[in-house]
Amino acid sequence: MTSGHSAGSTPAAFLDDFATMSSFGATAAGGVDREAATADDGRTRRFLADWFDRHGLTTTVDAVGNMYGSIEFVPGAPYVLVGSHLDSQPTAGKYDGAYGVLAAAHAVRGIVEMVERGSLIPQFNIAAVNWFNEEGSRFSPSLMGSGVFIGKFDADEILKVTDRVGISVRDALSDIGFHGNDRQPEAVSYAEIHIEQGPILEQEGTTIGIVTANWAARKYSITVHGEQSHTGATHMALRHDALVGASKIVVAARELTQQFPEGLLLASVGQFDVEPNSPIVVPSKVTMAIDIRSSDPDVLEQAHEMLMAAIDKETEVRISIDTSALRPSTSYQIEGVELAEKAATDLGLSYRRMLTMAGHDSVNLKDIVPTVMLFVPSVDGISHSEKELTHDDDLLHGVTMLTETVARLVRGDLESSS
Amino acid sequence: MTSGHSAGSTPAAFLDDFATMSSFGATAAGGVDREAATADDGRTRRFLADWFDRHGLTTTVDAVGNMYGSIEFVPGAPYVLVGSHLDSQPTAGKYDGAYGVLAAAHAVRGIVEMVERGSLIPQFNIAAVNWFNEEGSRFSPSLMGSGVFIGKFDADEILKVTDRVGISVRDALSDIGFHGNDRQPEAVSYAEIHIEQGPILEQEGTTIGIVTANWAARKYSITVHGEQSHTGATHMALRHDALVGASKIVVAARELTQQFPEGLLLASVGQFDVEPNSPIVVPSKVTMAIDIRSSDPDVLEQAHEMLMAAIDKETEVRISIDTSALRPSTSYQIEGVELAEKAATDLGLSYRRMLTMAGHDSVNLKDIVPTVMLFVPSVDGISHSEKELTHDDDLLHGVTMLTETVARLVRGDLESSS
Repeated sequence: MTSGHSAGSTPAAFLDDFATMSSFGATAAGGVDREAATADDGRTRRFLADWFDRHGLTTTVDAVGNMYGSIEFVPGAPYVLVGSHLDSQPTAGKYDGAYGVLAAAHAVRGIVEMVERGSLIPQFNIAAVNWFNEEGSRFSPSLMGSGVFIGKFDADEILKVTDRVGISVRDALSDIGFHGNDRQPEAVSYAEIHIEQGPILEQEGTTIGIVTANWAARKYSITVHGEQSHTGATHMALRHDALVGASKIVVAARELTQQFPEGLLLASVGQFDVEPNSPIVVPSKVTMAIDIRSSDPDVLEQAHEMLMAAIDKETEVRISIDTSALRPSTSYQIEGVELAEKAATDLGLSYRRMLTMAGHDSVNLKDIVPTVMLFVPSVDGISHSEKELTHDDDLLHGVTMLTETVARLVRGDLESSS
Repeated sequence: MTSGHSAGSTPAAFLDDFATMSSFGATAAGGVDREAATADDGRTRRFLADWFDRHGLTTTVDAVGNMYGSIEFVPGAPYVLVGSHLDSQPTAGKYDGAYGVLAAAHAVRGIVEMVERGSLIPQFNIAAVNWFNEEGSRFSPSLMGSGVFIGKFDADEILKVTDRVGISVRDALSDIGFHGNDRQPEAVSYAEIHIEQGPILEQEGTTIGIVTANWAARKYSITVHGEQSHTGATHMALRHDALVGASKIVVAARELTQQFPEGLLLASVGQFDVEPNSPIVVPSKVTMAIDIRSSDPDVLEQAHEMLMAAIDKETEVRISIDTSALRPSTSYQIEGVELAEKAATDLGLSYRRMLTMAGHDSVNLKDIVPTVMLFVPSVDGISHSEKELTHDDDLLHGVTMLTETVARLVRGDLESSS
């Protein structure tokens, strides 16, 4: 029943390509730093475009910088898309996103060879994708390119978004030569592979995770308004210290997680900016981004209420909630999960169903087409860190699994099962 | 016994000059923003140099940008210096420092007229001074120019200090045309007037504060080391969140102040920088500046021990104390305090002895010469804020008091009293 072991992609070729790709924006500590549409993101993108060319795929770029490496088997038919993102957090690991894009490219090339040698009769066309700005660290919000693809965001609005120094998405993409005007391919299904970013697969010794749903998440932008004064002269009773108020919220967010059984709730503050931020001035303002997530929507709502109560309790400062967004827990299509389970069984790879705590472009894509999301193990679950690590064997098993899964999507297995 | 009401400086002229000076770097909310050696500091300095010229004083500038407006009455004799600083915190009030410099200029001009008309026989020469970078917000440490003047800092080392974007003191001063090479005048005594930056004079209805000593202060630079990870995927038990650790220290510093009777201890964190500071990344590092002060050196030491204990208690993160500096409580010379008291009595102005909580250039100068530090009331004690306010009457009483005090220093009253 299997369509072959990632034909056209030898393990050595994959690892060699991955090492080359990881050299763009490499950090001394073994990670990468290539935020969306920076020069190093541009270098990585040119490497990918060159790879597409060398392997017979047609490179196209849409208005928001999503890159496609496609091949048309069936004139006019829609495309099975397979991809992830090349952009990274600042000082990030080299696997997050980049592994999924390169695995997609190798999977597509493998499928082309299967089609060429007649072992796969395609019902659909296929394209590897690099989605723009999944991370959201330079331009907010995250999942930007895939958000435009599915129609959640308007491309013209997204192009106007600016980074902290005022550079727009449009200008940043133009600067690296990736503000395209090609049409987006029509999608029929989507597959993505990613490192787990959690410790479950490694702890269990399982090779493949098949994602059934994403955790629910709430994200807040809040501003703590205090009053500027002199650290060395203003009486304590007269102070309205924005940093003290904001610090209490950070501690309160952490304490939320201790109100629930371990592992049920994540809560953290990643971004935190103090004004005027001078050694002898009591801070007048703090802006911060709070992020809480749970596998259980009821727990998330309870945590939300508790956080709002903690914010209401602060009286020395005034706290405004500038944005509050809920990303609900939603399911990946069960027919995609079952297709992946069959593929893993046929390949003899161990697998389990699991949830994704982090957001992925697949969370967007599943809103418009059947979507399969796969995980490979992460050592110690470390993520968004230069210490991120997935062993070579696991990377290669993932490429094999992705290729087999996508081959079945191209063959039309989803349609014949329904 | 009085030498005359600030001859040569009419109230209208002073208020008019103060309004003009406050227009440089003015903010919409009525304050100023002119950090050391910025373009707006340069504009204020050129206004002062022009004022010196128009009033017959010789403008000189030393290597670290201290500006002197001097006149020689007695060839070869040392100088009574009188001054403060024109630089401000970002979005600061318009009185802090600037009032003292303009009051000094008017006092010097008043004394020149007394000498010219024969009502004052000078034993010393006189110069108004604008000390470079008192605030320390752009270039650290604070009290920079006066620190070089008294030999506490080396001028060549200070010129190499850089701001956050890498611009050195030398380049910043050159850019605004105030990297001079004039000799520093030899000082015999020093006087300074400043807004109180506390509520005591206003609450009591007292016109003049005569400072007897400065509060003791401890300043710390600390770094909280965590480990970067993913806010949406890293299990809470695996986290080393630098922002959570740092926030607990901010809260602990505030709680210190509640361990002592009200008003005995000030504690705050003014500067606080988070890395990598991205919405979905658990922070790896926070650097912060802690500032604690007390009128009682024993209380300060107890607070120091308690703060160190709070830092030791944190186990999720590693905290390093990069610098820890003690500014002890030291006294202004009693003969200067008594000279000022006599001047206030003769002028019919109400006065009281008090401590200064904040640092001033006079804290440096008193280490080398007899120094008189005077305060005028601050409305609500508000400081380092655009809302800072001292009423015109209080400003003018201060100029009168400063002029009388400096006249007595020039006349040699300190010497004849000893």
